[in-house]
Amino acid sequence: MPKQKPADGPVAYTLSIIGASWTCLILRDLLTHGARRFQDLQDSLDGIAPTTLSERLRTLEKNGVVERRFYSMNPPRAEYVLTEKGRDLGPIVAAMRNWGRKYSG
Amino acid sequence: MPKQKPADGPVAYTLSIIGASWTCLILRDLLTHGARRFQDLQDSLDGIAPTTLSERLRTLEKNGVVERRFYSMNPPRAEYVLTEKGRDLGPIVAAMRNWGRKYSG
Repeated sequence: MPKQKPADGPVAYTLSIIGASWTCLILRDLLTHGARRFQDLQDSLDGIAPTTLSERLRTLEKNGVVERRFYSMNPPRAEYVLTEKGRDLGPIVAAMRNWGRKYSG
Repeated sequence: MPKQKPADGPVAYTLSIIGASWTCLILRDLLTHGARRFQDLQDSLDGIAPTTLSERLRTLEKNGVVERRFYSMNPPRAEYVLTEKGRDLGPIVAAMRNWGRKYSG
């Protein structure tokens, strides 16, 4: 098997986008609840630093997985929603949930 | 939704075991090739430090996902194989592969 750089292959590509800490838990919340404000995510993910949450959301936005939707312009208030590309990550989180249910008992 | 500590819930449980960097790529190789020696994994995962690979394998072994099988006693030589619990992680890696194929083009 040729020497495989971590960036090689579809699994490595997916991990380059969702592999960072907290990211799959953010996806879990967006998949479960649809639109989420920054504060909703902050409250739900006990222990996440605001700077980390901002960074993860920026990466997801940059990769077209999440988009911001402004629900108020003055003052500007936005919520995060999954794009179609983001919703297509559903099977990964669902498979994690199934495995976790089976083995975390 | 109650304040959810990262350790809460089946998705968080799964991530506590497979969420560290490189782990899903190690699982990908074991799922693809069956038994792998340390060197096989080291060669395949370009850029991984030996200490990191040892740590990840130790965590997977401790969590019953991987086991060591000695194929030579003198000198002692072992290979790593997935347990049933480990093979049950297959759908997660498969879902990552599908998403990566769809979106990494």
